[in-house]
Amino acid sequence: MSNEDAHPEFALPEIRRDPVTGAWSILAVGRSRRPGAVPGKVNGEPLCPFCPGNESLTPPEVWADRGQGPPDSPGWKVRAVPNLYPALMPEAGGRGWRRGGMVGRPAHGEHEVIVNSPDHGLSLGDMDAEEAERLIHAWLQRYRYHAAQPQVKQIQVIINHRREAGASLEHPHTQVFVLPVVTRAIRDELHEARQRAARGCNICAAAREARDDGRMIYENESWTACVPYAARAPFEVRFIPKRHDPDFAASGKDELGGMADVLTRVLKGLSNLLGNPPYNLWIHTAPCGGRDYGCYHWHVEMVPRIIIGAGFELATGMFISILAPGEAARQLRESMGIASEQ
Amino acid sequence: MSNEDAHPEFALPEIRRDPVTGAWSILAVGRSRRPGAVPGKVNGEPLCPFCPGNESLTPPEVWADRGQGPPDSPGWKVRAVPNLYPALMPEAGGRGWRRGGMVGRPAHGEHEVIVNSPDHGLSLGDMDAEEAERLIHAWLQRYRYHAAQPQVKQIQVIINHRREAGASLEHPHTQVFVLPVVTRAIRDELHEARQRAARGCNICAAAREARDDGRMIYENESWTACVPYAARAPFEVRFIPKRHDPDFAASGKDELGGMADVLTRVLKGLSNLLGNPPYNLWIHTAPCGGRDYGCYHWHVEMVPRIIIGAGFELATGMFISILAPGEAARQLRESMGIASEQ
Repeated sequence: MSNEDAHPEFALPEIRRDPVTGAWSILAVGRSRRPGAVPGKVNGEPLCPFCPGNESLTPPEVWADRGQGPPDSPGWKVRAVPNLYPALMPEAGGRGWRRGGMVGRPAHGEHEVIVNSPDHGLSLGDMDAEEAERLIHAWLQRYRYHAAQPQVKQIQVIINHRREAGASLEHPHTQVFVLPVVTRAIRDELHEARQRAARGCNICAAAREARDDGRMIYENESWTACVPYAARAPFEVRFIPKRHDPDFAASGKDELGGMADVLTRVLKGLSNLLGNPPYNLWIHTAPCGGRDYGCYHWHVEMVPRIIIGAGFELATGMFISILAPGEAARQLRESMGIASEQ
Repeated sequence: MSNEDAHPEFALPEIRRDPVTGAWSILAVGRSRRPGAVPGKVNGEPLCPFCPGNESLTPPEVWADRGQGPPDSPGWKVRAVPNLYPALMPEAGGRGWRRGGMVGRPAHGEHEVIVNSPDHGLSLGDMDAEEAERLIHAWLQRYRYHAAQPQVKQIQVIINHRREAGASLEHPHTQVFVLPVVTRAIRDELHEARQRAARGCNICAAAREARDDGRMIYENESWTACVPYAARAPFEVRFIPKRHDPDFAASGKDELGGMADVLTRVLKGLSNLLGNPPYNLWIHTAPCGGRDYGCYHWHVEMVPRIIIGAGFELATGMFISILAPGEAARQLRESMGIASEQ
């Protein structure tokens, strides 16, 4: 029996399978209570629950990068708290169900928010390398913590930058979804990686080919940033660590530093070029649970939300882009002050 | 060699395959010239190229439902013209290419616009049954015409309602994408249909189960409308013809009438409930080309665009919805004046 039938008002989140498309959706009724309206106001201005001093407006912190001082008080540099309106919950336990074509399972997991910094106006692209490395270090700590829990199949780390990209609060933050399933996107990428494994890693090859094809934007010692050959949208960027490893959790100090450098530089370039556009940014890494995903190569993706995806994308699963990837890379390089090749 | 390399300014559209995800995108540089700015103004108001009297602002019509009068003059009820900014073109011929992981093919096909009616303010949901049936008849005529052409693999019919759903012109219109590939969405649905074929049609079953599960919105003699069990978004609706047939092109007079009735009634209900929200609506039907797709069941889908899909959807391919499907169906029934069951 589904939770919806049992207790409509206190329904725990579910993961449901569509019998027509085979796709899974999360039904999380509790998220409908998310702010717009936040829990307090001062002089008519809404109180930001992520700003220092307002720690009592979030659930108690589960982790923080701080010096002295007790939990849930100011003084932190990065702070992790449970999402007040979770799409996945540890309480959503129990078995899956199947009634004819209606197949589902509890959305057992966690949904955490990492507040990127105490500064309400400082997005990832505005950070200096040290600030960004501190944030990425927080991602890694929380990733490793959750990956060690039983039943966890995938951990999805994302940033939604600005409301137009789906952020419900302005203060820059990261969301961590701890999932009991491997999502379609990762299954598709694993399939591609395995199909081509005999000829070497497809993502290592994609980085080399981007260089030869004029789609490289920037590279440092440990990372590359390029516009994908089949970019879904203008100025989409794929960030690829040079060392082939399936797992974000295996990243060392050098890679975190290189990651901070490549992300902040390219996002600054994007912001210069397009005037601080909304974007979605996420980590794609191998599933958790110890199986061998050696052919997979973890990476980061970023899609600016400057064009409204229309019915064609929903109807077909295929995107239409209107800017040649090589031209997008050229404009991004120019806005970053990098001389073009040739 | 890709077209982009050959003639960047006059590039023909391409379909490119992503070597990491396996997904295909269309690169259509010409669509970047789409209006906002339309080709003329009167008293400072932009001229609508889809209004009667402005026929010269579109390419010559390829089909019209009209009485007397020459082509490209007023007097039509529904009018089909090539898209001035096509994502697919008959000129984009020739062979595909493969350079390492860079795989692509010309976006050979057609991209047509059907102007739904002469009335600039009349959306599908505002139409009476006769007007809607005339429009659906136009879809069927154009569908049958394109399906008979060689090399056509799939025809995608969509409506983007309002700018927030991706419409670049306000005057209600339908887009017809004539594709040289079967898209991922249809491949996934064919896969599901085949997997379950031994137990009967999954879509016939989905309609029955929606009735038993309180997710049916409305039905007439030939159609049903329900909220899917795993709806991607609040108030998503699946419209299912009661007669199992893989192919929209096989629809008879009764089915067109029933389709006009179910679409207009439910869209009116949606508009009453949410105040004319933006939505995407599309037909899912079997691929063209004569193979046997007997297990597939064609249908129509509609997703309101009232919530901004965020990074989670892009990162995982999984949607998060915050309204229980049964509750969405109940609210839609209520707004249509249909007494709820029980």
